[in-house]
Amino acid sequence: MSSKTPSPAYSIRIRVRLADRPGALGRLAVAIGEAGGNINALEGFTVRTAYLEEDVIVYCANVDHQQEVLRAVEALDGVEIIEWEDRTHALHEGGKIQVTSDIKVDSMNVLAMAYSPGVARVCTTIAEDPIKSFDYTIRQNTVAVVSDGTAVLGLGDIGPEAAMPVMEGKAQLFKRFGGVDAFPICLDTKDPDEIVSIVTALAPTFGGINLEDISAPRAFEIEERLTEALDIPVFHDDQHGTAIVTVAGLENALKIVGKKHEDLKVVVAGVGAAGVAVSKMLLNAGVTNLIGVDRHGAVHTGRDDLNSSKQWFAENTNPELLAGTITEVIEDADVFLGLAGPDLLTVEDVRSMASEPIVFAMANPDPEIRPELIKDIAAVIATGRSDFPNQINNVLAFPGIFRGALDARATTITENMKLAAARAIAGVVGDDLHPQFIVPTAFDHRVAPAVAEAVRAAAVEDGVCR
Amino acid sequence: MSSKTPSPAYSIRIRVRLADRPGALGRLAVAIGEAGGNINALEGFTVRTAYLEEDVIVYCANVDHQQEVLRAVEALDGVEIIEWEDRTHALHEGGKIQVTSDIKVDSMNVLAMAYSPGVARVCTTIAEDPIKSFDYTIRQNTVAVVSDGTAVLGLGDIGPEAAMPVMEGKAQLFKRFGGVDAFPICLDTKDPDEIVSIVTALAPTFGGINLEDISAPRAFEIEERLTEALDIPVFHDDQHGTAIVTVAGLENALKIVGKKHEDLKVVVAGVGAAGVAVSKMLLNAGVTNLIGVDRHGAVHTGRDDLNSSKQWFAENTNPELLAGTITEVIEDADVFLGLAGPDLLTVEDVRSMASEPIVFAMANPDPEIRPELIKDIAAVIATGRSDFPNQINNVLAFPGIFRGALDARATTITENMKLAAARAIAGVVGDDLHPQFIVPTAFDHRVAPAVAEAVRAAAVEDGVCR
Repeated sequence: MSSKTPSPAYSIRIRVRLADRPGALGRLAVAIGEAGGNINALEGFTVRTAYLEEDVIVYCANVDHQQEVLRAVEALDGVEIIEWEDRTHALHEGGKIQVTSDIKVDSMNVLAMAYSPGVARVCTTIAEDPIKSFDYTIRQNTVAVVSDGTAVLGLGDIGPEAAMPVMEGKAQLFKRFGGVDAFPICLDTKDPDEIVSIVTALAPTFGGINLEDISAPRAFEIEERLTEALDIPVFHDDQHGTAIVTVAGLENALKIVGKKHEDLKVVVAGVGAAGVAVSKMLLNAGVTNLIGVDRHGAVHTGRDDLNSSKQWFAENTNPELLAGTITEVIEDADVFLGLAGPDLLTVEDVRSMASEPIVFAMANPDPEIRPELIKDIAAVIATGRSDFPNQINNVLAFPGIFRGALDARATTITENMKLAAARAIAGVVGDDLHPQFIVPTAFDHRVAPAVAEAVRAAAVEDGVCR
Repeated sequence: MSSKTPSPAYSIRIRVRLADRPGALGRLAVAIGEAGGNINALEGFTVRTAYLEEDVIVYCANVDHQQEVLRAVEALDGVEIIEWEDRTHALHEGGKIQVTSDIKVDSMNVLAMAYSPGVARVCTTIAEDPIKSFDYTIRQNTVAVVSDGTAVLGLGDIGPEAAMPVMEGKAQLFKRFGGVDAFPICLDTKDPDEIVSIVTALAPTFGGINLEDISAPRAFEIEERLTEALDIPVFHDDQHGTAIVTVAGLENALKIVGKKHEDLKVVVAGVGAAGVAVSKMLLNAGVTNLIGVDRHGAVHTGRDDLNSSKQWFAENTNPELLAGTITEVIEDADVFLGLAGPDLLTVEDVRSMASEPIVFAMANPDPEIRPELIKDIAAVIATGRSDFPNQINNVLAFPGIFRGALDARATTITENMKLAAARAIAGVVGDDLHPQFIVPTAFDHRVAPAVAEAVRAAAVEDGVCR
C-alpha cells in the first residue's frame, strides 16, 4: 500500500518556468495528474518577462514515482524544470532541533548571573545537595532519547548516525505534545555493558531516559539494568509505549463488544520487545488466557528453542499449552494483537475466531492483514498506520508519561503508572466511542495532559516521588 | 574585591508593601543605600487600598550583605517585605536552555515527513553514507560541552550535577555568539579511560566536542586521546580558549610597546592546563625565552618533581635554565602572564621587570596582582575580570572557533587554526588600540564572525576539511 498511494512522505517540490501563455498551468496540472501525482500546493509565484516561475508541491507514491512525475513535467512543451527537491530530505537538512537559551543574553549584567561569577553560587548550592539539580538545571524537564541504532523503525541495524533523524523527530514530539525537552543520544556501541555504563554516567545531565530502537533481547536487559542503577525514570518506548496504547485501545474495544479481560482468549503475534510488554500489561490487567506466537509457532513450555525472555513468556502464558501455527491457535480467540510483520493472518483465520473478533494488526508499514479484507468480519480493527481508523500510535503515550513522571519527580516508572496512562488514553475517547474510534488521534490536545495527570497521581500513590 | 562591590551576581529582588504616604519610597531608597546596596530597578508597581506594592532590585556585595540589606528594609516603619529572592538562583530555576523544534509540528503531513514514515528514507540515506549525517542531522551545528565536574571555575571537584549550571551557561554563550547549538554532557565518572570511551561513543550525535572544567593533567590526556580517536574537532577550552585570547591580547600589547615575540623574556605563572597551552602557542608564535613558574619555583630540567606535562615544559622552555622563585626569575622580563592565583606578584617584582612591562594577571576572581597597584609602572595590564579594562575572556574565542570549524566541516582543530583565531581577535581592535583596549569586549558583534572566517580559512589551508 505504501508504494501506491501518494503521500507527503514522498512529496517533491518542483520549481518550474512556464511560458506565459493561456492554459500553461492547466496542461502542467493535467500532466502531473495523469502521472499519478497529487498537486498539494502552488507556491512562490513569480512573474518574469514572458515567463512565470513557481514551486509545485506534488505528493508522490515512492521514489520511482517521483521520477515518473518529473519526466512527465519535463516532456511538456513550454515548461522547464529549474530545480527540484525531495521535500522530506529538504526538511531534514541541518537537523530538526535546536538548543536555545531561556533568557536573552544581552548584557554583562545577565552574563554575571547566568555565567561567571554568579553561576558559582548556584553550583555550590547543588554541590552541597545534588538533589537541587532538579531545581536549578535542565534535569527538571529534560530526557535523553538513547539509541544504538540497532533496530530503527523497520530498517534494522543501520547504525547510530543513521538513527539520528528518528531520535531528533522523537525530541520534536516530546516538545510538541509534552513540553518536555528531549535530546538525542546515539551511541557508537552495541555492547549492553557499555551502553549501561555510558547511560549511567550520563544521568547527572538528565531527568529521565527514553530508550529507543534498541534490538531485543538486548533492550530488555539494558532497560532492566538501567532501572536498577538509576534513580530517574527509564522507559523503553518500543516496549511500553506500544503496550500502553494497545492496552488503551483494547480497553475501549472490549466496551464495544461487551467482553471482559478475564474471559478473553488473546493471541499475540510477535514476541519481541513490544509483544512481551503488551502481554505483561494484559496479564496485569486481568487477562489469563494469552498465547504468544513467533515464527516457529505458539510459545509454550514444551519448546526447547526459547531465549530467556521467551522462556519467561512460556511459563507465564498459554495455560492450555497450545502448540502449532497461528492458524491453529487463533481458533475461538477473541483478540488478535499483531506486532510481527505483513500478511501473517488470513481472512479464514479471522473467520475462525470467536464472535465479534477484535483484530489489532499493528505491523508497520504493512499490517498482519489488510483491514479492508476483514471489515465485515471483525468487530473492531486497529492498525499502526495513520491512514486507517484506530491508529495505535506511541505518541499518545510517551510525551504525557514523561511529563507526568517529571512533574512528580518520580524516580522510576511503575506498572501502576503505565496502566494509569493506558486508562487515561482510553478515557479521552469518552462518549465518542465507536468501532472506528477507540483511541484518540495524535493531535488531540486532551491526551497528553490527561496522561500526565494520571501518571503523576499514580506516582504519588506508589510513593516513588523524590 | 569581589566581596565589597555590589554586583548583579549577588542581586536580590525584594517585594515590598509600602504604606501609601508621602516619602515612603524615599525612606526605603535611603535605607538600602545606607546599607550599601545599589538599587538597580523598581518593577511591578501595584496600587492597593492604602498600600503600594513593588519589586525593588538591589545589587549586593555578597550573601551576608544581602541579609544586611533585608534587615535594613525590615527595620523601616511602614514597609513590609512580602517576599524576596536571590536573583541569580531564580534565573537558574528549571535550567537555562531548551530543546526546540526547527519546524512547527502541526499536522499529520508534517509528521509524515519529520517522523514516520518519511524519516526512514533519510535514515537510509545516512546508513548508506554516514558522512551525510553532517547534511541531515544536527551534527552540522551541534557541539557537546563535556565535563566531569572536577575543576569547575575556581570551585574544584564539585561533581557532575553541580557543574551543569556552568555547562548550560556555556551552551547559551555558544548560541548567542556563534549560532552553535551546544548541549551539556556532565559525566558521573572521573576515570580518563571511561571518559574517552564515553565521548567516543557519543560522537555520532555531535559535530564537535568542547571539553570543559576537567582537572589537569587528566584533561591533557583526555583531549589528546579523543583528538586521536575522533574525526570531529575536540577542543579543551580551559587550555586553548584562554591561550588564544591571551595570545591575541599579547599581540596587541606588543604593538603598543614596540617589541617583538622573538626578543621577549616571558614569565608564565601557573603551569596547569591554561599555562601550558598559552606557552605552546607563544613558542609557536616565535617566543624563545619563556620561563614557567609553579608553586615550587621556575620549571627547569634540573628538577626531579615534574609530572610528564611539566617535564615536556622544562625540556622546551627556559633555555637559560633559570631556577628560583618568581621574584628571582621575573627580573628583566618583558611579559608576565598569570594563570595561577591571587596576590602572587608584588609591586617590587613588577618594578624589576624590563622597561614598559606587560602584566596579564588573569587569575579569577582575584588576580595575581591588583591592577591599581601597578597602573603607573606597567605599560599594559590585563585581567580575567569584566570590571577592569582588557578582560581576557574565553567567550571571544570558543564560539567563533567552533562556528568556523563546523562551517569548514573540519575534522580537527590545528595549531594554525588557533593562531588564526588569535590574530582575528587582535585584528578586530584595529585603530582603537590603546593600553586600556587591547582586546575587544565580550559583546563586540564583529569578533565571532571574524574568528569564524579566519578559522575556516585556516582549516581549508591546512587541508583538514571533510
